[in-house]
Amino acid sequence: MAEEKLPTRAQDFSEWYNQLVLKAQLADYAPVRGCMVVRPYGWALWENIQQSLDRRFKATGHQNVAFPMLIPKSFIEKEKHHVEGFSPELAVVTIGGGEELAEPLIIRPTSETIIGHMWAKWIQSYRDLPVLMNQWNSVIRWELRTKLFLRTLEFYWQEGHTAHATREEAEAETRQMLDIYTDFAVNDAAIPVIPGKKSDAEKFAGADVTYSIEAMMGDGKALQSGTSHFLGQNFAQAFEVRYLDKNGQLQHCWTTSWGLSTRFIGAIIMVHGDDQGLVLPPKLAPYQVVIVPIFKTDEEKNSVLETARGLKNALVAANIRVTLDERDAQSAGWKFNDWEMRGVPLRVELGPKDIAKQCAVLARRDHPGREGKISASLTDLPATIERLLVEIQVSLHDKALAFRKSNTHDAKDMESLKKAVETGFALSPWCGSGECEAKIKEEARATMRCIPLDQTGGGGTCAGCAKPARESAIFGRAY
Amino acid sequence: MAEEKLPTRAQDFSEWYNQLVLKAQLADYAPVRGCMVVRPYGWALWENIQQSLDRRFKATGHQNVAFPMLIPKSFIEKEKHHVEGFSPELAVVTIGGGEELAEPLIIRPTSETIIGHMWAKWIQSYRDLPVLMNQWNSVIRWELRTKLFLRTLEFYWQEGHTAHATREEAEAETRQMLDIYTDFAVNDAAIPVIPGKKSDAEKFAGADVTYSIEAMMGDGKALQSGTSHFLGQNFAQAFEVRYLDKNGQLQHCWTTSWGLSTRFIGAIIMVHGDDQGLVLPPKLAPYQVVIVPIFKTDEEKNSVLETARGLKNALVAANIRVTLDERDAQSAGWKFNDWEMRGVPLRVELGPKDIAKQCAVLARRDHPGREGKISASLTDLPATIERLLVEIQVSLHDKALAFRKSNTHDAKDMESLKKAVETGFALSPWCGSGECEAKIKEEARATMRCIPLDQTGGGGTCAGCAKPARESAIFGRAY
Repeated sequence: MAEEKLPTRAQDFSEWYNQLVLKAQLADYAPVRGCMVVRPYGWALWENIQQSLDRRFKATGHQNVAFPMLIPKSFIEKEKHHVEGFSPELAVVTIGGGEELAEPLIIRPTSETIIGHMWAKWIQSYRDLPVLMNQWNSVIRWELRTKLFLRTLEFYWQEGHTAHATREEAEAETRQMLDIYTDFAVNDAAIPVIPGKKSDAEKFAGADVTYSIEAMMGDGKALQSGTSHFLGQNFAQAFEVRYLDKNGQLQHCWTTSWGLSTRFIGAIIMVHGDDQGLVLPPKLAPYQVVIVPIFKTDEEKNSVLETARGLKNALVAANIRVTLDERDAQSAGWKFNDWEMRGVPLRVELGPKDIAKQCAVLARRDHPGREGKISASLTDLPATIERLLVEIQVSLHDKALAFRKSNTHDAKDMESLKKAVETGFALSPWCGSGECEAKIKEEARATMRCIPLDQTGGGGTCAGCAKPARESAIFGRAY
Repeated sequence: MAEEKLPTRAQDFSEWYNQLVLKAQLADYAPVRGCMVVRPYGWALWENIQQSLDRRFKATGHQNVAFPMLIPKSFIEKEKHHVEGFSPELAVVTIGGGEELAEPLIIRPTSETIIGHMWAKWIQSYRDLPVLMNQWNSVIRWELRTKLFLRTLEFYWQEGHTAHATREEAEAETRQMLDIYTDFAVNDAAIPVIPGKKSDAEKFAGADVTYSIEAMMGDGKALQSGTSHFLGQNFAQAFEVRYLDKNGQLQHCWTTSWGLSTRFIGAIIMVHGDDQGLVLPPKLAPYQVVIVPIFKTDEEKNSVLETARGLKNALVAANIRVTLDERDAQSAGWKFNDWEMRGVPLRVELGPKDIAKQCAVLARRDHPGREGKISASLTDLPATIERLLVEIQVSLHDKALAFRKSNTHDAKDMESLKKAVETGFALSPWCGSGECEAKIKEEARATMRCIPLDQTGGGGTCAGCAKPARESAIFGRAY
C-alpha cells in the first residue's frame, strides 16, 4: 500500500520500479525464483491490453487457438538456429505420473515447433491458406536475471502464427502485425514507439527478419515492446509444412510469428510513471476514474455517499470504468495517495462544500498537485470526464514523445554515440556490418535497437568504421 | 471435414464422439500422449463459455489474477489429503536452464497450495477479507486414459479461490458458485444439470464438502460438469492463512475453490449432438447463423452474393454472430453437411428463386430435414432470426431435460438400481454409509454422482442395506 514513499526516479530508477510494482499491487514475487504472481490490478490492466489487441487481430482475420504447453524435446532440435537460441533456456519435464518419461518434454518457450508439426497435418492445398492463428498463453524461459514484468521465467503473452502460399504475402503479414503493434502502443498505451528492423545479431532464433517496436523508458533506456518475425521457409522446411499449389506442385509454406507480452506493462510503468507512482493511459486503465468521498460527520457521510453513488451510476451508464472508494478505515488524504500510486487517470473529490455548490473537484493524475485540479459542475460531469480522459490520453503520449525526442541525438561518430546513449538513444549511420555493430556494443555498451522503417534524414558515414553508411540505426542501452 | 459420415450414436457412441470432435474441427490430438490442440472453432466456443462465466464472476465481485504454473514440490505435501489425491498425477520439472534443480517443481494440477502461500503474505486483517479471486489457465494431471475434452493431460479451465472470515460466509460462497454454474449450464448451454453434494468418497482431495453439477449425456451416462468446494480451514491451516479479527485475535481463514473446464465442451457435444454432428446452443455458438448462397451461373452468383452480403451486414448490426460461406470449391449441398457437422443453430439458404420472392429458407439445426425448414421474408429476417434463436435455445434445453427425465428412475432397491444405470440415472434412497456406496459401485458398476440439493420425493430404505435412508442420491455410470 501507499504508506511509505517510493524512492524518486532520479535517486534510483530501478528501485523506484520494483517498489512501484509491489505498492501499486500490480504483481508480487512468487515462491519459485524468477516467477511472478500477477495481482488483480495488474491482471485487469493486462485484460484491457488483451482486448485492445485481440480486437485488432480478429479484425484482420486471425483466429484464436490453444496448442499444448508440453512439447517433445526433439521438436526444438529440428530448426538449427532455433535450438541454439532456446536450448539454454528450457524447463524440462522428466517425470510424469510418477514415472521417468521415455522422451523428456519441454515447457514451450514459444510454439513455432509444435504449430509447425500440426500444420504439416492440416495444410494440404493452397485452398487451406493462409492460416492465421493466435494464442494467449504463458511460456517459460529460464532467465538468470529477472525483474517483475520485464523478465520473468514464466511470462504471459500472445503468440501469433501464420502460414502463407507466397513470400510476398508472409512479408506483408509480418509488416501488418508490426503496424498493429505500433497502432496499439501509440493510440491505446500512449507510448510512442519506433518500428524498425532488428540486426541479424538481435533477431529471433529461426527468423529471416525480425521487426520490433522500441520505446524509450523514463530513464532513457530502450525496451523492445513487441516483435514480428518473417520466418521464411525455415520452420516449414524443418516440419515439412507443404501445400499443393494451383498447378499441382508441392510447395513449402512461408510463415510468420509475432508476440507482445506482459513486458509491455513494464513499458507502461516506465514511460508514464512519476515519483508518486503509476500513471495509466485512460484507454487501458482498469479504473479510469476514482471517486473519493470526503466527510467528517455521519450526516455528511450519508449525503456525500448518496451523491457519490448517483455519480458512479451515471459514469457507468456513460461506459466509463469507475470505482467509488467507500473504505471506512482510511482518510481521504490516504486514499488520494493510494490511488495516485495506482495511477488512476482522474480522481473525483466530493465533499459537503462541493455538493452545496453542485460541483466536484477533478484531479488529473498526469498533472499532480493544484495545477491539475478543476472544479466542475455535477450536472454534466460525465461529459466533462469523457473529454478530460481524451485530453489525458493525448497529453501522456505527447509528453512521452517530447521526452524521447529530447533524449534522442543524431550521433555521426563513435564519440557522440557514446555520449548519446548515456542518457538516451543515438540515431547513427551504420555500414550494415556485424563487426561495427559488435564494436559499438563493446565501446559504447549499447545495442542496436532497430533500423527504423522511417529512414528520412539518414546518410553519412558509419559511426563504427567511417565507411559509407547504408542506413541509420537506433542504438541504446536496453532492458 | 464432412466427407465421410459419422457412425451413428446408437452404433458406437464413443466413436461417434471421437470422430465428431475431429470432423467439426473442434480439437485434434497433440504429439504428446493425452494432450490436445484446441482448434479455432473449438476455442471460439470456449471463449464464449469464458465470457458467459466471467461476466457472472465479476458481477459477484470476483477479480481475475494469474498465479504461476510452477509450484515447489514441497507445497503439495503440506495438506495431507491433497497430496494423496494429486501425487500420482504430477508432471515434474527437474531441469531448468540446463541444470538439475535443487528442488523439483511441479506443474500445477490446481492452485490451492501456491495461492495459500501468497495469501499468508497478503492477508493480515479482517479488513482484507473476503478475498475473491479467479484465474483462467491450464493445468496438468497425468491421466492414463484420455479422451479429447473429457480427460486430457493438460486442460483449460477457470479456478476460483476465495478466503473468508467465517465458516458461514465460505459456505455461502461455495453454494453461490454452484448456483452460478447451474445458471450458466441451464440458461446458456441449454444443459439441465442436477446440483448436489458429492459423497466423501468422491469429493476433492482436501475439501470438507464438494458440490457438483451433474449432467446426463446422450448415452445415459453422467458427466460431472463443474465443482465447487468448501475447503474448511484445511488449506488455511496448512499454509498459515490467518487474519486478526475485530477483537485483535488471530484466526484461520475459511476458504473455497471452484472450477469448470473444457470438459464442459464434451458435455455440450454429448447432450445436444445428433447423428449428423454437433448441435450448438445459440447463446454459445461461435456462429449462430450461416448463410449459404446457392447459384449456378455467374450472373446468379453476383446477384445472390450481393443479397447475401447485405443480409450478413444486417445480422451483424443486430448483434447476431453470422458467417457467409463464400467458398468456391464446394457445392451448396456439401456446405449444408459441413455446417450441420459444425452445429450452427440456423442456416440461411439463399438462391435466385428465393430472392425473386424476396424470401430466404431458414433451416433449424435442431430439426434436421424438411420439418425444420421455414421460408421467411427478407425484410424482417433479422427479427425472425432473433426469435428463432431464442426458440432453439429453449427447445434444446427442453429436449435434454425430457431425455434425462425419461432416463432417470426411482430405484428403491439394488435390482432396480442396477437396471436403471444400464440406460441412465437411478435416484435411490441411501443410508449415508460409505460401505453401501462401495457395495453399489461394485454390484451395479455405478458411482454416486451426487446427493441432489432438491430432496423432494425422497424417503424409504437404502438401496444398499435396506436400513432407513437419510437422503436420496443419484447413481450412474460416468465419464
